[in-house]
Amino acid sequence: MSNCMVAQSGGPTVAINASLAGVIKGVTDSAKYETVYGSVNGILGILNDHILNLSEEMAKDASYLDTLKHTPAMFLGSCRFKLPDFLDDDSSYSFIFKQFERLDIGAFFYIGGNDSMDTVLKLSDYAKRIGSDVRIIGIPKTIDNDLMVTDHTPGFGSAAKYIAASMLEIAHDTFIYAVKSVTIVEIMGRDAGWLTAASALARNGYSTAPHLIYLPETDFDEKEFLADVRDLLEKQNNVIVAISEGIHDADGNYISAGESQADSFGHSQLSGAGKALEYLIKDNINVKVRSVEINVLQRCAAHLSSQTDLDEAFALGEKAVAYAAEGVTASMVTMNRTSDAPYTIDYQYAEIKNIANEAKSVPRSWINERGNDVTEEMITYLSPLIQGEPAIRYENGLPVYMDVSHLTRH
Amino acid sequence: MSNCMVAQSGGPTVAINASLAGVIKGVTDSAKYETVYGSVNGILGILNDHILNLSEEMAKDASYLDTLKHTPAMFLGSCRFKLPDFLDDDSSYSFIFKQFERLDIGAFFYIGGNDSMDTVLKLSDYAKRIGSDVRIIGIPKTIDNDLMVTDHTPGFGSAAKYIAASMLEIAHDTFIYAVKSVTIVEIMGRDAGWLTAASALARNGYSTAPHLIYLPETDFDEKEFLADVRDLLEKQNNVIVAISEGIHDADGNYISAGESQADSFGHSQLSGAGKALEYLIKDNINVKVRSVEINVLQRCAAHLSSQTDLDEAFALGEKAVAYAAEGVTASMVTMNRTSDAPYTIDYQYAEIKNIANEAKSVPRSWINERGNDVTEEMITYLSPLIQGEPAIRYENGLPVYMDVSHLTRH
Repeated sequence: MSNCMVAQSGGPTVAINASLAGVIKGVTDSAKYETVYGSVNGILGILNDHILNLSEEMAKDASYLDTLKHTPAMFLGSCRFKLPDFLDDDSSYSFIFKQFERLDIGAFFYIGGNDSMDTVLKLSDYAKRIGSDVRIIGIPKTIDNDLMVTDHTPGFGSAAKYIAASMLEIAHDTFIYAVKSVTIVEIMGRDAGWLTAASALARNGYSTAPHLIYLPETDFDEKEFLADVRDLLEKQNNVIVAISEGIHDADGNYISAGESQADSFGHSQLSGAGKALEYLIKDNINVKVRSVEINVLQRCAAHLSSQTDLDEAFALGEKAVAYAAEGVTASMVTMNRTSDAPYTIDYQYAEIKNIANEAKSVPRSWINERGNDVTEEMITYLSPLIQGEPAIRYENGLPVYMDVSHLTRH
Repeated sequence: MSNCMVAQSGGPTVAINASLAGVIKGVTDSAKYETVYGSVNGILGILNDHILNLSEEMAKDASYLDTLKHTPAMFLGSCRFKLPDFLDDDSSYSFIFKQFERLDIGAFFYIGGNDSMDTVLKLSDYAKRIGSDVRIIGIPKTIDNDLMVTDHTPGFGSAAKYIAASMLEIAHDTFIYAVKSVTIVEIMGRDAGWLTAASALARNGYSTAPHLIYLPETDFDEKEFLADVRDLLEKQNNVIVAISEGIHDADGNYISAGESQADSFGHSQLSGAGKALEYLIKDNINVKVRSVEINVLQRCAAHLSSQTDLDEAFALGEKAVAYAAEGVTASMVTMNRTSDAPYTIDYQYAEIKNIANEAKSVPRSWINERGNDVTEEMITYLSPLIQGEPAIRYENGLPVYMDVSHLTRH
């Protein structure tokens, strides 16, 4: 019997703790592994020796796994730490593997997005180089849904559900005035339009909002946009437009009122595509206009998560442990869709080297020709992912989440 | 037997349709009234002859009242129409009362906020002047909680619950990084700080966020604010600040990065207090900083409403009908709190002339001396208002609301 280590990294989702709960459950049920340790703040917890004994904590509280499954963001905290190339500097690698040895770690699970899979790849390569038999497995999560190989990513379905429900509620909020108006709704997604596409799920028997949808997979043309808005305003009072934060013109310039700064992974920090289009409408069309930014709540509003998403995230955590026990390493657990209706998936795994640092965009064929809406294929793909409402426990009027004071204590 | 007319006005809340459902139920159960008509887009529906027979529509659908009770914004639409003084021009008044006569209206109910109560006052005065016995009763609603005489307003409790839950989820989203950071959360409330105060309900056994709270009832001092943030950053990594959109300096200038425009009621359109403080921190303290605007969803996210709020809104609708049947007019129905624990209220009514065009601010004694937090009295007042979670019906992953196509059809 050996032990396991798990950590979380990247940006928050509401499903990332469901995968953590799945890992804990997987280890608890495993004949091969004994204790599961949690590294606090991603890989940094191993480097800084901030490690929790999750098996011990779980044993104290009968509702531990259930509450954890419904808690947003990272129970173990996150980091934005990029491991150096070990050919340049292997000091952190050698420390990490010494820690693994000290705690008798047989498998390490890293729950994260693209950047975290880069860490999984590097640790896997290093393990191979030093002949370590510690299994290294990535568990995907990202609201952006932009990881390769897997049909979709945990966290995306819940964010999609939040966005669709919010779009429907914004439509109700908008329809009340019998005056011409334009509402711009800005949704997360720098390079991939999956989240913005999900706003189309809000359409129902009485509302066709959003009336226009613009994704970063096509070039945004201001003139065509203004023409589309004017056309719709001829036919109806309220025009509601869903846009990705990352929409850009044909030259690749972001449509943005904000500044551009690079983070440690070289991404630009964007804001303001919604504001930019609000001003564009104000300057060109004489109607009431407002922009709404679906803010960080799209990634952390656990009170409105998708049961399908949480169940899949949990199952991927369990599967990761089972695969590690079978000897799988240098891999990420994945989901393969076998049918749309009824919706069915197979859990599998794929070699990490084919996944890390690659991003999955919306196929051009799932966007209409004019580039201002999504197609029926997109709806068929998205619809199963937002199904089901988890029973969230409330106390004193508010959702009950895990105590995360270990993240804020000194 | 005579009939009733009901209309809705002002900005959306998630409880305003619960009051409408209460009026319909009240008329259905009344021995004095027969049919309830709904005027579409507030008082404008009477002027434009856009009137629905709600009794007839309700009879077609067994779940009508229940779905209506949980639907956000105005099922009957809204307007921002201000009646002229009838001493200057009584043409719209005379048309409205002719419509009342034509439809044999014995009572008119107007569900709205401050500006709508101004309409109730004017119609009441005109009815008295022409000797009409049509009862005119206002039913309060506003997320701002700034109406006089009533303990609180329907719509406020649900908005407060949404804000507190969102603040808790933002705290989870913030605590994940072990780096110094400041998060500014901007909440609605131009003149009254009730909604921003509700963010304090997010505090629990493991989170003291929001760490600072600034309301428009006190003057905002940039130097004191920076000192408070610096002090907190000495003790903890993440500082989360809740501010009202209407915070202002000692000279009354709004703390805002945006422009100022007046709407038809003479209010300024504000945006950007959050952004302004984000830039202030960036310029003065070397930490990661972001601002989040809790957007229109705080007034329309019916999926996270307060059962207490919806039940009270419904009861006020029923009570308004009962009071009208007793002969009450020129009044607004109100709630009088008789106990905090257990929480109990009495439904009453008050003369509209003491209510219209007056706004209720947060008492200075419910704000701490330094003006950067609320007191325990505020928590005691707010806590009962967010209790209880309604059973929202979901279909295909999304909440089921009323078909509002009558608002968007030509």
